[in-house]
Amino acid sequence: KYPQKNGEVLSAQYGINLLLIGVSLMLALSYQRPSVTEEILLAFLTALMLVQLLWMLCYIVRREQRRSLPPERDANTATSWIRGGLTMLAMLSLIMDAFRIGNFVGYQACVSPMLGVYPAVHALHTISQVHFLWFHIKDVIKRYETFERFGVIHAVFTNLLLWSNAVMTEAEHALNDHKKRLAALGYFNFTVDPEQPACNCTSSACSMFSSSLYYLCPFNIEYHIFVSALLFVMWKNIGRTLEHQSPEKHGSVGGSCLLLGPMLGLLALASSITVLVIYIIHVEETAEARASAISMFYTFGIVILACMSVAGAAGLLIYRVENWPMDTAANPARTLDAKLLLASSVGAWLLCWCSVVAVCWAQPSPTYRWSNLAYALLLVLEKCVQNLFIVESLYRRRREPDECSAHSPSHTPTHSPAPGEIFSVTVPIAPPYDGIVNHAYEMPDCRVMEKSQTNRHACSSNQRNMPLSLRHRTQDTPSWKRQVLKNIAIFLFMCNISLWVLPAFGCRPQFDNGLEEAVYGFSTWSTVLNFALPMSLCYRMHSVAALFEVFHKI
Amino acid sequence: KYPQKNGEVLSAQYGINLLLIGVSLMLALSYQRPSVTEEILLAFLTALMLVQLLWMLCYIVRREQRRSLPPERDANTATSWIRGGLTMLAMLSLIMDAFRIGNFVGYQACVSPMLGVYPAVHALHTISQVHFLWFHIKDVIKRYETFERFGVIHAVFTNLLLWSNAVMTEAEHALNDHKKRLAALGYFNFTVDPEQPACNCTSSACSMFSSSLYYLCPFNIEYHIFVSALLFVMWKNIGRTLEHQSPEKHGSVGGSCLLLGPMLGLLALASSITVLVIYIIHVEETAEARASAISMFYTFGIVILACMSVAGAAGLLIYRVENWPMDTAANPARTLDAKLLLASSVGAWLLCWCSVVAVCWAQPSPTYRWSNLAYALLLVLEKCVQNLFIVESLYRRRREPDECSAHSPSHTPTHSPAPGEIFSVTVPIAPPYDGIVNHAYEMPDCRVMEKSQTNRHACSSNQRNMPLSLRHRTQDTPSWKRQVLKNIAIFLFMCNISLWVLPAFGCRPQFDNGLEEAVYGFSTWSTVLNFALPMSLCYRMHSVAALFEVFHKI
Repeated sequence: KYPQKNGEVLSAQYGINLLLIGVSLMLALSYQRPSVTEEILLAFLTALMLVQLLWMLCYIVRREQRRSLPPERDANTATSWIRGGLTMLAMLSLIMDAFRIGNFVGYQACVSPMLGVYPAVHALHTISQVHFLWFHIKDVIKRYETFERFGVIHAVFTNLLLWSNAVMTEAEHALNDHKKRLAALGYFNFTVDPEQPACNCTSSACSMFSSSLYYLCPFNIEYHIFVSALLFVMWKNIGRTLEHQSPEKHGSVGGSCLLLGPMLGLLALASSITVLVIYIIHVEETAEARASAISMFYTFGIVILACMSVAGAAGLLIYRVENWPMDTAANPARTLDAKLLLASSVGAWLLCWCSVVAVCWAQPSPTYRWSNLAYALLLVLEKCVQNLFIVESLYRRRREPDECSAHSPSHTPTHSPAPGEIFSVTVPIAPPYDGIVNHAYEMPDCRVMEKSQTNRHACSSNQRNMPLSLRHRTQDTPSWKRQVLKNIAIFLFMCNISLWVLPAFGCRPQFDNGLEEAVYGFSTWSTVLNFALPMSLCYRMHSVAALFEVFHKI
Repeated sequence: KYPQKNGEVLSAQYGINLLLIGVSLMLALSYQRPSVTEEILLAFLTALMLVQLLWMLCYIVRREQRRSLPPERDANTATSWIRGGLTMLAMLSLIMDAFRIGNFVGYQACVSPMLGVYPAVHALHTISQVHFLWFHIKDVIKRYETFERFGVIHAVFTNLLLWSNAVMTEAEHALNDHKKRLAALGYFNFTVDPEQPACNCTSSACSMFSSSLYYLCPFNIEYHIFVSALLFVMWKNIGRTLEHQSPEKHGSVGGSCLLLGPMLGLLALASSITVLVIYIIHVEETAEARASAISMFYTFGIVILACMSVAGAAGLLIYRVENWPMDTAANPARTLDAKLLLASSVGAWLLCWCSVVAVCWAQPSPTYRWSNLAYALLLVLEKCVQNLFIVESLYRRRREPDECSAHSPSHTPTHSPAPGEIFSVTVPIAPPYDGIVNHAYEMPDCRVMEKSQTNRHACSSNQRNMPLSLRHRTQDTPSWKRQVLKNIAIFLFMCNISLWVLPAFGCRPQFDNGLEEAVYGFSTWSTVLNFALPMSLCYRMHSVAALFEVFHKI
């Protein structure tokens, strides 16, 4: 039998090379006098998407054939709210595809047919992929591994390539915007690339289409990067032997104390949108208006980052006081989450340190010089604190309220049930439940038990037999500390959305403030920005998802 | 108690930010009109090295104080030949430092004193670090974790920064060389930066010093990247509970069949040095000589890569035929090895795919166009095959010769001893050894047992009691397949050295062939090269080390 490790290495190599082929095509396209036309790149992407479609079809057909033998499922990956969010993003992507097709129809006379084929295939790909996500992303594949391994890794890297393609389009657009602004201010005399095709549009909606595309692109970007992360977890799960963990209990979502966090978060979101609008209007006006817009941005940033740092630090302090047990069970989704958080922070941190260097040694001294420094250092601090908070929250196991109250000396944390406790799905009957809370045993989740058909009745009847008072007790006593943590999580959640909205829709003072450009030169600095800004956006969206999970888990 | 996961995240964040500060300084330095001077960067690096020196001192003093309680050691990391090789590289680094100090003394009048302080501190740092590597790199730290965790990660990232600094110097040098050649051929009219300081050298040895520096730099680069990999494994080991694995048996290094591999390898090495010399001489001459030198390089590359691919494929085939058991015990050093191999391949693969794109769409068509294509595709294939071979070799456990011969149906692989079998160091007496080979138990290694002083005598006396015939039997019957694998490993080992020597000492046709530059533009292509070539060099050196380990393991 072919060893698993080799299968992993071989398929990873296949995927990496796919990505690199795409990247080399994109690099060639980004040159001013490109030898490679856009159609070649689009044809390559279309071919990859068609292969993925074919594979998903085969996979689903195979699964249908063996319906009697349902696959194991990894409960930790792709929770339903993640899939719901992705469906929303996918819908916005579909609208984008529709606009692209409309744009193509308008300019049909003078553009390559590839510009029409690509969005059509992309729409089909999006629909089937969302279907796949809903019904198959949790599967733990154990048989016919080679075919599945290559298929999943192909899907991962196809989505990564679509992400990089969208990022490149976005970066070009931003660079053109920046050049236009500089030209309008009379600073430089760049030749701005024409973004419109050579002929006139036959319909009246073309300009609407192309300007809307710009606002839909950020959602498409996030959609692809999320899907590839989920598929990567699926790939990691191939051939894995799942331990049936004690099911996590979600409860007490509502609660009267959940007020301050959402309120402050909404305030942050509203003010960031205000800042965004003011910034975009003012930055294209005179040099003074430009400087004041940039100053305003930094002041807003300092305030929101300081609040976020304090909130995160408060959360960490609560964890230090409260002695909740750690959850160390194997969980590829969580490991990936933690690693991705750290890795995607690198982009923003690089920008921050570049800003610090620029502030210290730049010749020009605009009014926002020192606020830029404060903003950069606070951003570094905020990401550190937030990463620590998220990682700690993900690795904490919730102590149940009744578990908390039983603080007898015999019940020290070392005696609490081990986190990775294994529950066989084929437990014939639940142990007797005689009114005393049994710490060493948690109710097997009914969802898990549904698989073994014979147990379903036992499970539900058992729940019915449970004394009502006990069921209420576990729901009604959320400690105030948990409420504070929930508020912090929801506040950070909304702040991260705000900080995603700002750069995603064109508020990028790193382009406009001129300090870094003076120290690094235009070409180096725009390269750094093109590399680091997508990572930074990805970080924000990823921490939004992680914080949502934290909110549900606490 | 502060949870381990948080300690990891916090220290990783500290390290990453150190690296990013350094990188942002370097980026600022690489601009044509730098605001940041070189002294600032050197001062930063010197400060980091001094902090590391202080930490190593504290660590060693602490260990001495608790001499009675020796730490556990991870036997898998930093084998003695790795440390030996590193000592050699460190010595070359010391020579480089001496030359730098000499250079500084010569130009003392007109250069900053920092240029003298830096190499002096670097020499001190190198000496103490080698001492640390020999006596403490295998330690598994279990107490006072926070201090150690930050110290080790500081050391990891200090070495990474020193590596990036050396790489940057090297890249600038290569770029200047390239510009000089182009200027000599009359292609372009670049302004070449003056590499010499403004005043005259007071001693006669200055030119010798500065030209020798160029040849010593590659060794310094490899030294730092290796040390940081070893230190990273040490960081990963902090707080780890070690399983005492069955000790690996090394035997039968010699053997009459070990002839073809080394011979062919030496041939490859010799011819690559010839190619290097011819290339460097010819590439600065006329355009025709240049083209023929490049053609020669590609022809040589195609031949050697084809041989390496065939050798690697043969090795994989042998593994398919032979059914050796897998070794799945936890081993951070090996996991890192496999991941680093894949990650560092990315650079070379990117270059290859860029070449392929360039060959397909470039306007100029030199004579070496199609050999460039063949070279690029073979390079992709060779790296894939070699990675598979190395990973498979590292994850295979050797079946002992006597184990092989016992092919009774009751002895199927599933019944063989589990790879991660745990042997306690406190086993009071070895089980009775009555002449029949006991598959389920291997002799505990005496090195491991030396720790528990009482067992030493038992161990050595036990070895003395072992029948002589049996000890011989395990050494005298190496199968021919193992000999073939050993030959393959040593051949690949020497080929990788050859392929490291070529780019490390200036044979970089990617700069000179002009195809990629036509498609990607000068600035994009030199950025890609500056990023990908160091990774590619790192890959070669890393696979040299891995293949040496494979050679010893088979």
